[in-house]
Amino acid sequence: MFLAIDEVHNTALLALVHAGVPEEHANTQVRLWIEAERRGHPSHGLLRLPRIVERIANGVADPASQGNHQWKGDAFLSVDGRNGLGPVVAQRALDLISARAKTTGVAMAAISNSNHLGMLAIYAEDIARKGQVLIGLTTSEALVHPWGGRQAMVGTNPVTIGVPADPHPFVLDMATGLISMGKVHDYANRNQPLEPGWALDHAGNPTLDASAAKSGAIAPFGDSKGYALGLAFEVLVATLTNSALGRDVAGTLDSTNVCNKGDVFIVAESGLERTAVTRYLDLIRATAPADPDKPVRVPGDRAQLSRAASDETGINIAPEIWEKIRSLAALSAAD
Amino acid sequence: MFLAIDEVHNTALLALVHAGVPEEHANTQVRLWIEAERRGHPSHGLLRLPRIVERIANGVADPASQGNHQWKGDAFLSVDGRNGLGPVVAQRALDLISARAKTTGVAMAAISNSNHLGMLAIYAEDIARKGQVLIGLTTSEALVHPWGGRQAMVGTNPVTIGVPADPHPFVLDMATGLISMGKVHDYANRNQPLEPGWALDHAGNPTLDASAAKSGAIAPFGDSKGYALGLAFEVLVATLTNSALGRDVAGTLDSTNVCNKGDVFIVAESGLERTAVTRYLDLIRATAPADPDKPVRVPGDRAQLSRAASDETGINIAPEIWEKIRSLAALSAAD
Repeated sequence: MFLAIDEVHNTALLALVHAGVPEEHANTQVRLWIEAERRGHPSHGLLRLPRIVERIANGVADPASQGNHQWKGDAFLSVDGRNGLGPVVAQRALDLISARAKTTGVAMAAISNSNHLGMLAIYAEDIARKGQVLIGLTTSEALVHPWGGRQAMVGTNPVTIGVPADPHPFVLDMATGLISMGKVHDYANRNQPLEPGWALDHAGNPTLDASAAKSGAIAPFGDSKGYALGLAFEVLVATLTNSALGRDVAGTLDSTNVCNKGDVFIVAESGLERTAVTRYLDLIRATAPADPDKPVRVPGDRAQLSRAASDETGINIAPEIWEKIRSLAALSAAD
Repeated sequence: MFLAIDEVHNTALLALVHAGVPEEHANTQVRLWIEAERRGHPSHGLLRLPRIVERIANGVADPASQGNHQWKGDAFLSVDGRNGLGPVVAQRALDLISARAKTTGVAMAAISNSNHLGMLAIYAEDIARKGQVLIGLTTSEALVHPWGGRQAMVGTNPVTIGVPADPHPFVLDMATGLISMGKVHDYANRNQPLEPGWALDHAGNPTLDASAAKSGAIAPFGDSKGYALGLAFEVLVATLTNSALGRDVAGTLDSTNVCNKGDVFIVAESGLERTAVTRYLDLIRATAPADPDKPVRVPGDRAQLSRAASDETGINIAPEIWEKIRSLAALSAAD
């Protein structure tokens, strides 16, 4: 069902405020979910609201914490999220390092003990619109098997890179798993078989059975190289943030564990006129496609089209999720 | 033919010194080539020496330049390589940002106008042995086609990540092409067909003919995700270094063009005891393999084994390359 953006925003806001989130923080968190929905990524959208409310009720997410942000050097911001909401802790960190990078040239935030960040692309786009570049990395539960292995040992560890360009910034946002565990669950719900090479079952054997894969492991993207990259992100982020590794990571997919993954952001000043990047990306968009009906795409373009369309259509949200959010928001009328 | 490491080093050194390279710089450059050979990567080894000598003779590489290294902020080192040797310019930059990161927490070098860096893993290993982490990126000639495209538009843009661990650092070093153009040339020399999906011919059609692929394009690794990642590295590095993009990049594979790619290094202080990373990597090495005869590997392990073996065996170098280097070195006796 399609709903007006403002209506969804305000209802989600009420639900969070009722759960104890200060209104300014709730606005930051809800914006991330709404922007993910608008960009066509509901997996990072409002379906996460009820879980965050549960996490707050269970005491593993602190609705009011903004985290403790401390400079460990002129350009290195060490952040103890103190179980705060991911976007709230991250936004404060990004504001600080973006301002600092204006004088130091580059600055990094290393965040631990913070909840799920949401869709990374949005942070990258925000920073790139200010004329700076962003590299963002975050670890996650071990769902990916090593290349040549049988068991989930590595997170889906996504990376985002934002670079100024016109008419919108260049934004990469991709996980290092071949598919998401969300997709496995979707296939399982629809009784649809997986494709070969996507996943292993609990015993570590290849499977096309999506239900069996839910307790197994998904493949890294790009075979041995993608595995190596995802593993590199895992040890890099843990080393910078002093956070958990591998199967010890918890708290982005459940309602009961403290979230112990790490997040790293690097902001740097640009040395190049954005017109050069824009011109290059336009050459790529215009290059001859292998299939005449499928123009070559630049990362982020599809998300921008989807976002623009949502200006007209509003947000397409599953009725059961909307019902849940509405009932959580309705509680606030009873306050 | 296997040759003693010292003999190869000294002979290569003589050849560079004769070409006008100051001895200290020549040592830095030769070490990079030798270490690549020892790690089993001859494509980044001594076969590049004759080309560098040619580049110096042609005036597109400056044998004596160390580059101009200038702080643009407390943590951002802007480097104009002034056509210097890649490892010489990079080593100076890394020394500066590694020292600076001790007080700022993180520091970045953005290098333009410098020659080919050699094997990135060696820089990552050096920094990680100091207890710091390194992220390294460098652009290169457009050899990779966009996913769904027909023409080479993106560099093979490699990434290195070094993280402290025992008994040796964790070191990722990978290009974002599915295969290297060097491999295409090897296959062409041996009249061996390529595998499906590896490359396109000059007209942009899929080909198994290695000779036809030499003037075509190689595929990105990891399909659309690897393409997106390689493209992100291209625009990120160009933006930070004010260097060339796409098909405008030249000078790492020829003897006549100034080298106009960019290099980016980020060094940061570690926040985690290396034992945690070591323990995690050991769990990965010990995890059940899909094929009992093929233990799961961690990036960098194979290179370390190869390097250790070279202590005993010396370096395996192609006779024609050795002959070339010896004749270049012999010129110095005639000086």
